[in-house]
Amino acid sequence: MRCAIIATGDELTTGLIADANAAWISARLLDAGLPTVLHLAVGDDLDAIVDAFRIAGARAEQVIVTGGLGPTEDDLTRDAFCQFAGVGTTEDRAAAEKLRVIFAAMQRVMTPNNLKQAQIPAGSTVIENATGTAPGFYMAVAGATYYFLPGVPRECQAMMEATVLPLLVRAGGGRVFRMRLLRTFGMTESQLDEELKVVALPAGVKLGYRAIFPEIHLKLLAEADSEAAADAAVKAAADRVRAKVGEVIYSEDGRGLEEVVLDLARARGLKLAVAESCTGGLVAKRLTDISGSSDVFERGFVTYSNRAKMDLLGVPREILETHGAVSEPTALAMAQGALAHSAADLAAGITGIAGPTGGTADKPVGTVFIATADKSGARAGRYHFARWDRSMVRELTAQAVLEILRRTILGIKEFERR
Amino acid sequence: MRCAIIATGDELTTGLIADANAAWISARLLDAGLPTVLHLAVGDDLDAIVDAFRIAGARAEQVIVTGGLGPTEDDLTRDAFCQFAGVGTTEDRAAAEKLRVIFAAMQRVMTPNNLKQAQIPAGSTVIENATGTAPGFYMAVAGATYYFLPGVPRECQAMMEATVLPLLVRAGGGRVFRMRLLRTFGMTESQLDEELKVVALPAGVKLGYRAIFPEIHLKLLAEADSEAAADAAVKAAADRVRAKVGEVIYSEDGRGLEEVVLDLARARGLKLAVAESCTGGLVAKRLTDISGSSDVFERGFVTYSNRAKMDLLGVPREILETHGAVSEPTALAMAQGALAHSAADLAAGITGIAGPTGGTADKPVGTVFIATADKSGARAGRYHFARWDRSMVRELTAQAVLEILRRTILGIKEFERR
Repeated sequence: MRCAIIATGDELTTGLIADANAAWISARLLDAGLPTVLHLAVGDDLDAIVDAFRIAGARAEQVIVTGGLGPTEDDLTRDAFCQFAGVGTTEDRAAAEKLRVIFAAMQRVMTPNNLKQAQIPAGSTVIENATGTAPGFYMAVAGATYYFLPGVPRECQAMMEATVLPLLVRAGGGRVFRMRLLRTFGMTESQLDEELKVVALPAGVKLGYRAIFPEIHLKLLAEADSEAAADAAVKAAADRVRAKVGEVIYSEDGRGLEEVVLDLARARGLKLAVAESCTGGLVAKRLTDISGSSDVFERGFVTYSNRAKMDLLGVPREILETHGAVSEPTALAMAQGALAHSAADLAAGITGIAGPTGGTADKPVGTVFIATADKSGARAGRYHFARWDRSMVRELTAQAVLEILRRTILGIKEFERR
Repeated sequence: MRCAIIATGDELTTGLIADANAAWISARLLDAGLPTVLHLAVGDDLDAIVDAFRIAGARAEQVIVTGGLGPTEDDLTRDAFCQFAGVGTTEDRAAAEKLRVIFAAMQRVMTPNNLKQAQIPAGSTVIENATGTAPGFYMAVAGATYYFLPGVPRECQAMMEATVLPLLVRAGGGRVFRMRLLRTFGMTESQLDEELKVVALPAGVKLGYRAIFPEIHLKLLAEADSEAAADAAVKAAADRVRAKVGEVIYSEDGRGLEEVVLDLARARGLKLAVAESCTGGLVAKRLTDISGSSDVFERGFVTYSNRAKMDLLGVPREILETHGAVSEPTALAMAQGALAHSAADLAAGITGIAGPTGGTADKPVGTVFIATADKSGARAGRYHFARWDRSMVRELTAQAVLEILRRTILGIKEFERR
């Protein structure tokens, strides 16, 4: 069963953005054992979209189309498909009702073009959109089935997972696939590969790597002829991988690192505080991304200036003058200050050079000091997170801070970037 | 003159990477006045590549092909084109000589498959590769000209600039395109559409929308027969759009809102501080994303608990007890406290209910109070940012805070979510 993906939108053919949806969809299709034979992107042009349906339908049995379902003039995908299929549109009552409820809840006036989103091609079936206004739909025409999803990645992905993938797997017949994702941080893809290439996996299980900066996810994909066999195979494979590189695996259930840290702290009744310089609020932001973080995350200090470090954290002026703002003594004083000036049980202090300017021979861009403090004392490490740009240095640093908190709470050996 | 872009490689159809070359090439083609009508991506499969040549050649006069020119087994683009064009290969002497020199310089043994890179289709012309080993080539077949470039972005881009674009511009003659992006915040896509559909744009100018939560970008694309005419048309169109919805346009030069705020503050010698509750560091994070923000952003307070609000900002206990942590008096006291407890000239205080839990009938999820304080006094507003999930409420809130800071600095009318 071959798949093709069509993306519509002038933003693609004018080069404003790359087609990230196609890559994501292809990866998920592959996880489900379905090969993609073609990606197509066309602009907001009715004839070009119809032409794309023809090209894709002649080469694949399953065609996934993203974009062009919104309320404005340049959203033409629905009209193009009606022309291609030779059908009119019909209002989906549930979708129209949902739009009315949403607009009422947001206390916003619904314009006529908003209602256009509830129109679907006659004979098609709605794909529910739990995270946005435009529903999707699917319909078979001349030997191929076309699935229509919004171009917004979050909505497109949620609808693929909830509706389209299960439909495709059912259409595929027979084979059962199981995927398990082991999230790791602290080893590179090639280091993991060196360790794991000697591990014998159960028959039918494939190990893959997915680099999602700054993490590496290990994908275990089991194919079998029953759910029980696939479950058993993927479990056995995970056990063998864990025996080899378990220390760098922080989650096997989809939780992100910030959620793991919060859960570990909550289970032990610990409150956390962070004092950030180079990460500028990113660690606090990641922790508070999680609903319910308020019972663990007590406060954060974004002490970008020296004065803020002295005022808010009590970092001694002599330390800043003798060792500099980016130094191990400053990181230690920040962590200790955050502990002393909060109601937290465990605090982190972060200072470094995110770049692109500010580096020196002794402390090049990417030099970061991370300290933690609790009632048993304080400790710090120096890291060199040289990466391509400022945002990567900051992301890598925030990730390392969370990993250090995880290891500190668990009492396992100090984080060490291999 | 229409262009199409073909990318080859299993890494694309398995979703390992998104096709960034196609976006880059389309943007450069547009700069040169050449519209792209189609992007195609196929795997490392000879028949699929030949098929892609046929699809693209039937729809465009100029076809740019990336990837599959290297020395390994799965580099099939050259063979596919020979089959498509019905020609054999011939060794390009200069390319072969260059390979020998490169391998000698690297003191590496050249294997026969390395020499494969010097083979080009008979009748084609070499495109020199100044930054890598595999040369490109171009050749006309049945009404379309095909340009072949390596998939490595650096090599692909250098060869586009040095050779392919000059060839295309010469072949094209005439039509010129100009694009301008107006970034807006504060109106929805349909509200903008309602306002702007009555605006008469100059001939040859198309208006499009691009929703990048929480912003809407307006795209103006002008087509004309000279650079001067295209420039004039896009400028006239921008003037008319600005006359209608100028208040919500914060940038026309590619800068993000955080950068605009920092630049405005810097120009006036103002320092900023933020006191965040529901956004949990996100506003500080966005400001410090920008290199050089340290001369404007003085400090941030992530006061997630009531105790932190009292300790760090001096929010009176009576305010928290009488009005609650999520209230206008608390937001005002937070902004005033951040101003008093920092070296900033302008401070913001943010408190709200990001959800999904914590909402009440009186203050449902999405209720947010944002205050600013400076030496002239303090002011606050209540907003209802009901959105799909916690992260969207937080992102929308942070965006509103930055927009309120922009308007406060500029002294323009208070932000109001329509």
